[in-house]
Amino acid sequence: MDSSLTPAHIRHLCRLGEFHTPTPGVASGYVQANLVVLPKSLAFDFLLFCHRNPKPCPLLDVTDVGEHEARIVAPGSDLRTDLPRYNIFRQGELVEEVTDIREYWRDDFVAFVIGCSFSFESALLKAGLPVRHIEEGKNVPMYTTSLSCLSAGVFSSCLVVSMRPLSAGEAIQAVKITSRYPKAHGAPVHLGEPDLIGISNLNSPDFGDAVTIEEGEIPVFWACGVTTQIALGQAKPEIAITHAPGHMLITDIQDESLVVP
Amino acid sequence: MDSSLTPAHIRHLCRLGEFHTPTPGVASGYVQANLVVLPKSLAFDFLLFCHRNPKPCPLLDVTDVGEHEARIVAPGSDLRTDLPRYNIFRQGELVEEVTDIREYWRDDFVAFVIGCSFSFESALLKAGLPVRHIEEGKNVPMYTTSLSCLSAGVFSSCLVVSMRPLSAGEAIQAVKITSRYPKAHGAPVHLGEPDLIGISNLNSPDFGDAVTIEEGEIPVFWACGVTTQIALGQAKPEIAITHAPGHMLITDIQDESLVVP
Repeated sequence: MDSSLTPAHIRHLCRLGEFHTPTPGVASGYVQANLVVLPKSLAFDFLLFCHRNPKPCPLLDVTDVGEHEARIVAPGSDLRTDLPRYNIFRQGELVEEVTDIREYWRDDFVAFVIGCSFSFESALLKAGLPVRHIEEGKNVPMYTTSLSCLSAGVFSSCLVVSMRPLSAGEAIQAVKITSRYPKAHGAPVHLGEPDLIGISNLNSPDFGDAVTIEEGEIPVFWACGVTTQIALGQAKPEIAITHAPGHMLITDIQDESLVVP
Repeated sequence: MDSSLTPAHIRHLCRLGEFHTPTPGVASGYVQANLVVLPKSLAFDFLLFCHRNPKPCPLLDVTDVGEHEARIVAPGSDLRTDLPRYNIFRQGELVEEVTDIREYWRDDFVAFVIGCSFSFESALLKAGLPVRHIEEGKNVPMYTTSLSCLSAGVFSSCLVVSMRPLSAGEAIQAVKITSRYPKAHGAPVHLGEPDLIGISNLNSPDFGDAVTIEEGEIPVFWACGVTTQIALGQAKPEIAITHAPGHMLITDIQDESLVVP
């Protein structure tokens, strides 16, 4: 996939059924986002869950009830067709992976567009910091932790974190850089001793792949959007739809626009 | 009122029915907040309205459905009794002013606690900047504008702004200072020519009192929480309850805790 295609072009290819692959590296420089779709009956609770837990669930856009356009971050988009791949959950169980959700769409659905770590990773790379799972061609390692999110109505979850190994000096720089991206999970939530947040073995991530931690490096942990998947799994909504992992919504906003002063 | 009383003490006095007066200057250093209470049927739309319009409606805390404690900003509080005075609205019309809303409370109510400008005003004063309406013992002048908020479901409104006159140099400093308080309306939305945002006469504010603008000063405009009152007035909910103007919730969090780096 040509990394120079515009976000609108990529979304159009998805809509035509011509793009079904993972999105890392696609439309370079533009913010990619998680999608969660829920019935209105759960929308207040979920919006409140995101509001109370902005590090794992930084909201970029939320639709009005029944709307399927992300008006703020992707004007002209159709969230039912414009992602490469979707997961359908019933009672919290994954039941199907599809490339189009028009036949599942209901007038009482609300769509939540949530920031992801790709934005800050590109800032880390630009600053010359290593991003190990990218170097190793792997998925980022993710872990459930003993840290709890604030619950909201039916939604509760432990905090899920992603991990990137860095030297102490790099870790300090990474704190500074990612602090400027609150809409992409922001500053780390922990660094160093994994036990302190309930992680017993870095080599056995709960999601994604283990990566090499080199001599002199410490693990640095960021809040992760997979937290919402745990919350959905526990709440067991009648129906929920999300992007398929790695198959994100490509928005029209640029990574740099997420930076806070 | 002794400005050194703790927030919990003030709330307790309200609960006992012994404190019914305006709160400026009370529990100095602690964040004061607006209150909006709505039935759950409107809670998603209103939460989304606040999320989309964080400058006029910076959310500090939102309760779960039926809860009347602001667990995050005022643990142990009872939002039904702990403010000095409340307004009851039916179909968008003010029908009553009361000092206790227990008899109006319903199990489907959601309470929204929203930041107010007192926090940034105290920072302006500490920096030696003039806050004219305080100097003149008046209410801050507020104006409806030609700027629109992003609507959400049944809620829409023009942006209401408050105005403080400052010299150019002071205005620059005020931008820097208030930028650090996004949960208290943040940086100004405009400065200088009032016509450009649809204000024709600074001497006739739509709410509050006109203040003196001295030679060499320009008007500086901040987003204002009264915006929510316009949105409620237009949506005409069956019932809504707010704090009475100037009779705010005193929270346990300190003004300084709102500062972003």
